[in-house]
Amino acid sequence: MYALGTHLLVELRDCNPEILKDLNRVKDALVSAAKEAKATIIDVSFHEFNPFGISGMVVIAESHLSVHTWPEYAYAAVDIFTCGDIIKPEVAAQYLIGQFESKTPSVVEMKRGILSFDGERMPHKIECAEAAAV
Amino acid sequence: MYALGTHLLVELRDCNPEILKDLNRVKDALVSAAKEAKATIIDVSFHEFNPFGISGMVVIAESHLSVHTWPEYAYAAVDIFTCGDIIKPEVAAQYLIGQFESKTPSVVEMKRGILSFDGERMPHKIECAEAAAV
Repeated sequence: MYALGTHLLVELRDCNPEILKDLNRVKDALVSAAKEAKATIIDVSFHEFNPFGISGMVVIAESHLSVHTWPEYAYAAVDIFTCGDIIKPEVAAQYLIGQFESKTPSVVEMKRGILSFDGERMPHKIECAEAAAV
Repeated sequence: MYALGTHLLVELRDCNPEILKDLNRVKDALVSAAKEAKATIIDVSFHEFNPFGISGMVVIAESHLSVHTWPEYAYAAVDIFTCGDIIKPEVAAQYLIGQFESKTPSVVEMKRGILSFDGERMPHKIECAEAAAV
């Protein structure tokens, strides 16, 4: 079976809470993770909640990375959804485990867009050369 | 066991390809889905790829909605990640199935942030009253 995308659901437990509260560190970590994985970044959006907690998304040509942090529980939920053969989602996951200093991470991999069951390979994009931000 | 969040992985197959190519329709659908589910929208980011295909994210106070469309395959991958008891992720999923005219949708529900195994309830946010866009 061929899938259009790979989606890693990353549970980062026992992280460093001070990092999870720091908007710039969290944003830099996700942006760097995308670059480490050879992704093409299209847009970045990060937000800080009151009294703490951060949500952020990095839209990439190959789909997206997202993070939601709960500093009060030393926990962050990360999603890394990628398509194509060039990008390495596991590299992004490994990088973030290190950046957030998670002592007990877990990673579950899901395949998205399994549309063919006869071995037919379905290219994920006919052409990805250009993206227009709107 | 108590989870901080609910994450619906929605596979929308056999959609209307013309809708999946239309940036405004896709964006309006996701924004409306978030509102139908009683979410608080923080930020919206949608992008069109060449020759077609749309990626979009709606950051909400309660986490996020995302969509990636493959009009050439009449398929869209949607994620609805929510926290708390007020928001109804299944309402958003049902709404999008209708908006994209998916004939064969599937929804898988994952729990995120299961940190306690002794029945202890862990509130998902100490306070969500304010979000600062950065």
